Amino acid sequence: MSDNVKAFLHPRSVAVIGASDNPNKVGGRPIHYMKKFGFKGEIYPINPTRSEIQGLKAYPSLAAIGAFPDAVIVAVGGDQVLETVRTCAQMGVKIGVIMSSGFAELGEAGRMREQELVEVANAGGMRLIGPNSQGPANFSNGAILNFSTMFMETEAKDGPIAIVSQSGIASVIPYHFLRSAGHGVRYVVATGNDADIGACEMVEAVAADPEIQLILVYLESVSNPESLARAAAIARERGAYMVALKSGGSAKGASAASSHTGAIVGNDAAIDAFFKRNGIWRARDINELVRATPLYLRSQDARSGRLVAMSGSGAVAVMTADLAERENMELATLSEDTKKALRAVLPDFGTPNNPLDTTAAILNDGTMWRRALDALGSDPQADCVMVSMSVAGPGYDIDALAADTAKFASSAQKPIVLSAPQERVRDVFEAHGIPSYATEAEAVGAFAQYSAHQRLRANVKTRSKPEGAGYVARPSTLDEFNSLQTLSDYGVPVVKQCICNTPAEAQAAFEALGSAPVVVKGCASSVPHKSEHGLVKLGLKSAEEVYSAAEDCMSKLTKLGVDHPQVVVAQMVKAVHELALGVSVDPQLGPLVMIGEGGTLIELRRDAVSLLAPFSADEVKAACGKLRIAPMFSGYRDTPAIDLDAFAEAAVALGDFAVQCTNLKSIDVNPVLALPKGQGVLAVDAVVEFE
Amino acid sequence: MSDNVKAFLHPRSVAVIGASDNPNKVGGRPIHYMKKFGFKGEIYPINPTRSEIQGLKAYPSLAAIGAFPDAVIVAVGGDQVLETVRTCAQMGVKIGVIMSSGFAELGEAGRMREQELVEVANAGGMRLIGPNSQGPANFSNGAILNFSTMFMETEAKDGPIAIVSQSGIASVIPYHFLRSAGHGVRYVVATGNDADIGACEMVEAVAADPEIQLILVYLESVSNPESLARAAAIARERGAYMVALKSGGSAKGASAASSHTGAIVGNDAAIDAFFKRNGIWRARDINELVRATPLYLRSQDARSGRLVAMSGSGAVAVMTADLAERENMELATLSEDTKKALRAVLPDFGTPNNPLDTTAAILNDGTMWRRALDALGSDPQADCVMVSMSVAGPGYDIDALAADTAKFASSAQKPIVLSAPQERVRDVFEAHGIPSYATEAEAVGAFAQYSAHQRLRANVKTRSKPEGAGYVARPSTLDEFNSLQTLSDYGVPVVKQCICNTPAEAQAAFEALGSAPVVVKGCASSVPHKSEHGLVKLGLKSAEEVYSAAEDCMSKLTKLGVDHPQVVVAQMVKAVHELALGVSVDPQLGPLVMIGEGGTLIELRRDAVSLLAPFSADEVKAACGKLRIAPMFSGYRDTPAIDLDAFAEAAVALGDFAVQCTNLKSIDVNPVLALPKGQGVLAVDAVVEFE
Repeated sequence: MSDNVKAFLHPRSVAVIGASDNPNKVGGRPIHYMKKFGFKGEIYPINPTRSEIQGLKAYPSLAAIGAFPDAVIVAVGGDQVLETVRTCAQMGVKIGVIMSSGFAELGEAGRMREQELVEVANAGGMRLIGPNSQGPANFSNGAILNFSTMFMETEAKDGPIAIVSQSGIASVIPYHFLRSAGHGVRYVVATGNDADIGACEMVEAVAADPEIQLILVYLESVSNPESLARAAAIARERGAYMVALKSGGSAKGASAASSHTGAIVGNDAAIDAFFKRNGIWRARDINELVRATPLYLRSQDARSGRLVAMSGSGAVAVMTADLAERENMELATLSEDTKKALRAVLPDFGTPNNPLDTTAAILNDGTMWRRALDALGSDPQADCVMVSMSVAGPGYDIDALAADTAKFASSAQKPIVLSAPQERVRDVFEAHGIPSYATEAEAVGAFAQYSAHQRLRANVKTRSKPEGAGYVARPSTLDEFNSLQTLSDYGVPVVKQCICNTPAEAQAAFEALGSAPVVVKGCASSVPHKSEHGLVKLGLKSAEEVYSAAEDCMSKLTKLGVDHPQVVVAQMVKAVHELALGVSVDPQLGPLVMIGEGGTLIELRRDAVSLLAPFSADEVKAACGKLRIAPMFSGYRDTPAIDLDAFAEAAVALGDFAVQCTNLKSIDVNPVLALPKGQGVLAVDAVVEFE
Repeated sequence: MSDNVKAFLHPRSVAVIGASDNPNKVGGRPIHYMKKFGFKGEIYPINPTRSEIQGLKAYPSLAAIGAFPDAVIVAVGGDQVLETVRTCAQMGVKIGVIMSSGFAELGEAGRMREQELVEVANAGGMRLIGPNSQGPANFSNGAILNFSTMFMETEAKDGPIAIVSQSGIASVIPYHFLRSAGHGVRYVVATGNDADIGACEMVEAVAADPEIQLILVYLESVSNPESLARAAAIARERGAYMVALKSGGSAKGASAASSHTGAIVGNDAAIDAFFKRNGIWRARDINELVRATPLYLRSQDARSGRLVAMSGSGAVAVMTADLAERENMELATLSEDTKKALRAVLPDFGTPNNPLDTTAAILNDGTMWRRALDALGSDPQADCVMVSMSVAGPGYDIDALAADTAKFASSAQKPIVLSAPQERVRDVFEAHGIPSYATEAEAVGAFAQYSAHQRLRANVKTRSKPEGAGYVARPSTLDEFNSLQTLSDYGVPVVKQCICNTPAEAQAAFEALGSAPVVVKGCASSVPHKSEHGLVKLGLKSAEEVYSAAEDCMSKLTKLGVDHPQVVVAQMVKAVHELALGVSVDPQLGPLVMIGEGGTLIELRRDAVSLLAPFSADEVKAACGKLRIAPMFSGYRDTPAIDLDAFAEAAVALGDFAVQCTNLKSIDVNPVLALPKGQGVLAVDAVVEFE
């Protein structure tokens, strides 16, 4: 990351071109904010029609300043932007925030103007955020090169959180929720069209600030995955968390995919895989983006993720158990010591379960809360602690309960949250430093996310690219034989097969294979759906059968308009189960390998996982554990265990091949026959497509 | 429903046994509340130690009143409850709310005390709510026979909503959220242990109030399904909505189920099916219980459920599209007229899409909001309208925008909601009568629920029980042959089969069946997993093969300890696909029929739906549409369409049989061979278990 990128957050002086005296205009807001939030550097309003703007001396032009601004904000009409940037770049200005709109967001003509803008800037060594950008804001030094209305509305406060977003609105919605909950936010960066410096680079810039503990990101595209991956690594290394909301994952794109793999994994799975590989939690909406914030900021260990919960109501206990199951959170199994301790605390009719129902007895004994919490929360399995206060009122000393909870939290050093429907109860607990949620659903959801994110982050493994020369193919769809042959060359085990141009060759191939039965298949890249055309002849046991099957396939292919009809003669192998592998290629993120159940119903079953290549065999095996058919792999009822190691190696080989290709479009390998443990796997059909 | 049940909500006079002068004691709260909320009937505090309680004349005993109370509240110590109730019943008191605890919630001894309590009451014609009940509350007449602390905390207001809950806490949490959002709530009924009159009956009582438009229910068990079904019917008939949260659906119980069907459907699927059949929306947490309230209360038609959305941000538009997909809401496809109208409203660079991004141009032209909303919201597909106001501040006249939105809502008569992160914005829109949510996720979630609930309610069909004598069997697990034979007797098509005691009989059976190949299977109810023991011999084509297969099976069965080994000789039929049927029996709700994909991997694939019997063939076919393999049914790639009509009829026959059984435990029918359209289905293996 260049110093220029960091300079957007730490400019020593800022010129505002198109400055306005009106603090509610785009060219007025940044000046207003920089003054208000104590920016210590020089501010140079540039406006040829005024001598003073918002109490500051105004200049008719950049040249008139007589000093050299570190950064410029460009807030002039869209048609003046290019010349303005040209002037800045020629003068040696290093960074500019282009707030003006009228570029790529308008379509192709705008996109070309935008490209020219970047070229003009970069030619002079100038880097841009925008155009169409709300700009960066740094509340630690008052460098608010940002015109959002939200900072007029919601009091700013510096803190350990950064928000980086391609969209202005999507930066300030989470900002508003965080600030309303009392969290300080240092950076709010809305990058806009990302023509030059984009959101990914700005994430890298905020990640470099050692005081930032939580980075929230909103993206509509991942324009610079390498930069985002570096940012994630920086954050991980110093224990900070990154949560990202990537929008635009609708299934519409996926349904138009040409390969089976593309149709099954969708166009969003690559994003999932990319975030996972980098330890970034993927939020599905704004609420998920912000809800675990207090847990992230405290950053206590919750990797094992077992929940204990305590309330004064059986119903809340039951609902909490349901919620834990929904959110895939394990409930701690209480130790005998814990149960004994709880029995000493609870009234006679209470039961030492988890979730714990203290009963309403707490009304009669204010110390019971603390004693029950001590006993429950000290259980060795208690990784996450939730207390529910479902109703307050006469008889409940909320302040004392909150203080007791805070005492427990500070001595136990375990993450603990409150769930309470009444805002006044939450306020008291928050004042004692206990993160508080209105419902158990939100609290358990936040815990589940936080603890799963810790595990995700702890398991980040990256395999560097395999060695090997780039594989370039001419744009084409390989036929079955060549597809399999190519994969075989790169280490994917394939069935023994021969390609034949005549029935006689097929007969000879049968003899050469030396084992019956065999299958004869018509082979032509222009006829992908062989079985629909009667081009698959199974279970052939004699040379005569093979001859006539080949003859029939060839005549059918000829009728289908194939110039040089061929057949494949291949061994028939009895498999334990039919699996599949596939590759779809994401333009930004590279090849995504699909791993799952195969067979003719593959697109209906959709029992598949996917990994961004390259990856290791261990990663494949871990991912396979999430398939519905996973229990089969180790043997299921009267079916033997399959050779999962061999399957994983085949997937790794396929991923490594895909990484080495320069113009791969997609690969379908289906079925991959899984043989019993120790006997390997065999790909028996495949289509490889290059573009 | 008897008048007694209604009387809990409309008592003319109430005696409080165990009355307290302290309004914060269980025996003091109802008196305090009835006075505070204007109860017009007589209140008789009963307490032998006081002459006056909370300003009312107190009586030493019921007898001392000299008048006859309509209802009593029992708030005495657990050990005095029985005698108190006995006295009341003997005196002719008709209804009692037993707030005292110490009964079934403590275990078996408490359960027996509870049973005695009900017997004593009922013997005198007295009906009870409780014990361990927080009690019923009616805020339309001040009859608050309820001691919840929440009514001290949260201002009460009468309105068109009823809450009925087995749990006290689970009644007041939604109450608090509804009241905090400004909704009036008429009934809050917490029934407790449901020993006599339970939550279901109280739902029926509140449903009978024609002013109640929304009934929220919290249940841990459905103790009286007939009553709840009647309540749902009453509500549906007059256009009211019922939403229920049934907790305790954890998967733990399901994993212990003995039949495959039980393991697949889980112990919670019967509840789902019951709610669906009765048009009750099942909420998964408290938030889902309350979130669509403003839509329910307005009750505008949203059955077609297509969403239009408008915001000033491209990011919000993209996120809204994602959310609509997540919540299974269709986005309206805008008509050409709508697009034309929008083009006239939007700035040059705007695009008439749905979700619509009006761009920030609204800042410069306050009328644009109304004009865009008119154009978008008038689209013929616009069934549900969401507007987003992501940031307010200088330049936005929120009050005018809210007023314009209200005008649109009143002229268009379509449901419309606002999403806005800022509370002050929501407050303004709420003041104009527009339901407002903090996030698009909540708003779209509420719309999706509301519109799906309307469809659910509109599609309620109930089939009355089939005629036929009750089928009683001795407790047993039928062997394969007898299982299939029994099902066949009741109209489920089964494969042609013979039961044989000797290899010679098997040979004869082969001749009698008259078509090869056949299968020979060892048959003994004590050996359910035949294939694991080598007891399935497939593809036998000659009498000799059948003889020796039968001989082998019989010898294996003998080794497995079977006294009278038998074999089944059955036709082998080539199927298009293997399906399955099954029955598990819910103790409260009756037989639940599972319908789905069959085969040996049935428990891994879990591609199944379930319906409470009895049901119609149309219901089966609609449910089958939700299976992952549904596209197969009408023919998929080179596989022909299956006979879905015959499969549906088989499911109906199975359901009808199950309904007629008095002691059925479970049925597994797997596989059911699906033949091509017009050729039917055939059950080829089954286990029927009676208890």
